[in-house]
Amino acid sequence: MPELRKDPITGRWVIISSERSKRPIDFHEQRTKKRAGFCPFCAGNEHTTPHEILAYRDNGQANGPDWRIRVVPNKFPALQVEGDVNKQGEGMFDKMNGIGAHEVIIESPNHNATLAALPERSMEEVLWAYRDRMDDLKKDRRFQYTLIFKNEGLAAGATLEHTHSQLIALPIVPIQVQEELDGSRKHYKLKERCIFCDIIKQEIQTETRVILESAHFIALAPFAPRFPFETWIMPKKHISCYACTTTDEFRDLASLFQNVLRRIDRALAVPPYNYVIHTSPFKDEENDYYHWHIELMPKLTNVAGFEWGSGFYINPTPPEEAARFLRDVKP
Amino acid sequence: MPELRKDPITGRWVIISSERSKRPIDFHEQRTKKRAGFCPFCAGNEHTTPHEILAYRDNGQANGPDWRIRVVPNKFPALQVEGDVNKQGEGMFDKMNGIGAHEVIIESPNHNATLAALPERSMEEVLWAYRDRMDDLKKDRRFQYTLIFKNEGLAAGATLEHTHSQLIALPIVPIQVQEELDGSRKHYKLKERCIFCDIIKQEIQTETRVILESAHFIALAPFAPRFPFETWIMPKKHISCYACTTTDEFRDLASLFQNVLRRIDRALAVPPYNYVIHTSPFKDEENDYYHWHIELMPKLTNVAGFEWGSGFYINPTPPEEAARFLRDVKP
Repeated sequence: MPELRKDPITGRWVIISSERSKRPIDFHEQRTKKRAGFCPFCAGNEHTTPHEILAYRDNGQANGPDWRIRVVPNKFPALQVEGDVNKQGEGMFDKMNGIGAHEVIIESPNHNATLAALPERSMEEVLWAYRDRMDDLKKDRRFQYTLIFKNEGLAAGATLEHTHSQLIALPIVPIQVQEELDGSRKHYKLKERCIFCDIIKQEIQTETRVILESAHFIALAPFAPRFPFETWIMPKKHISCYACTTTDEFRDLASLFQNVLRRIDRALAVPPYNYVIHTSPFKDEENDYYHWHIELMPKLTNVAGFEWGSGFYINPTPPEEAARFLRDVKP
Repeated sequence: MPELRKDPITGRWVIISSERSKRPIDFHEQRTKKRAGFCPFCAGNEHTTPHEILAYRDNGQANGPDWRIRVVPNKFPALQVEGDVNKQGEGMFDKMNGIGAHEVIIESPNHNATLAALPERSMEEVLWAYRDRMDDLKKDRRFQYTLIFKNEGLAAGATLEHTHSQLIALPIVPIQVQEELDGSRKHYKLKERCIFCDIIKQEIQTETRVILESAHFIALAPFAPRFPFETWIMPKKHISCYACTTTDEFRDLASLFQNVLRRIDRALAVPPYNYVIHTSPFKDEENDYYHWHIELMPKLTNVAGFEWGSGFYINPTPPEEAARFLRDVKP
């Protein structure tokens, strides 16, 4: 059974996933490993994944072909879905069972598809699939948060190249989201305004860090980005939770999101990237202080050095320059 | 002039280092770049580095050969040492000039040396050099913190293979150290005890996460490690700041530290690694609540994916197993 453990000094939770446990030598092999030829995510190979949780298909039956989007449990889950959270102490330390869902959103049946080049309608459906899974997992009272993210490219942590995102439902809130929640609650207490709404307003006025705007969304380079070309995508009006977004808004987002991805591919020669959706925890989904958004990080530098151990980042590209490049490039 | 910018939501500071600014295409080249043959850190090449700030040598003159340890300014500094901090606003955002020192500690004149295999006396001198530079930089009232770290191996962010550490003196405190300070202050307020002292006491009792103990130091796998084989090295008695450590204690540390590095090299096939020294900020160096320590992270997994964007880590190796491996391996 995997465990969730809390660092007693900072309050940061980690998964200790003993089911995936490795001997020291395995790490060495992993460093030099190549990817296999067979792809379990391709149409026709449905029987090689665990049974699907959700699929969008016109006709045909569950776990058959003819799907457009397919959500399946991760075959090597970091968390275990059955069981009780069972919070307990170990002397001064806190831990609980590693209960949670770990799912894979297969974004296309086509092995060579990329998120940036999907038909816009399919991109919209990817956004829907995220929402549908969040709405379903919310019903499970053990969970506080659903972390949705994409690792694109080997260097960004993807172990299968077929385009997919992942979802982890958790009995805790990830520390960076918690820090944002704390910060924006503080701002709201002081000003009675959402700090993200304030940022968006100022960014639209100054323009220098804006990459792209649509009817309902804005893509911008944040004022203090950790990484070159880090990009945030946010609804322009206040929406506290991802799943509160309307179908119309998702349609608008699909188009803007793909536009941004294409610009990044063009400007940076199809880099590996990660994105993470930040949204309000289930307990307080609709609120006035937090603003859901996507944080998108192209993986451009080899560096993952002292930053891990300090939380202190050196970014060689001013966000104003990054935004200008991405504005000027043809998507 | 580089800038320090503060994320308004979380309070995290980043360096925007425009002097190192890159065109998008440069990142692509960097991804595929090989290292050059010439090494500016080797004995005999002293003229190719900026003038030395500190060196340990028996005789001979500054910037000549015959040194054992040499500290020089980083040729491509992330921060600029001359000038005024000049804190200012930009609408709702906060920034200041990117004032700071960025230095390189060259740990040996020998190109093929590794920290793990240095003579013990040289390792001791590396620890002294860190202390001497901290003590000197503390006199500069613009600085609040000195971040000392080592990136070993290309995958850990080292751009030159000749063994060296780096030092960045900062007008701010890195967020992870700040979070630890906040957490340990809270614990002290509640219990009137240092949380690190409490952890050490419990770990010595339970033994399962202890890797190695010496007269004055302990190496252990923390209860909630982010990474496989993450290792913390701490003084066993309460010492709040690195520079408060005595010469005797440094001698003891040199031996334990190398022993740990050799065990990691042996168990994990000489992995790339990073370490970062966490110590109390200059303003309150001697205190009862914070405990200086080294966080050492072998770089074993390719993964630097969604963790960047969530602060949430999946660790496939329970620390009890990691500690057992490192205890059992012959250094």
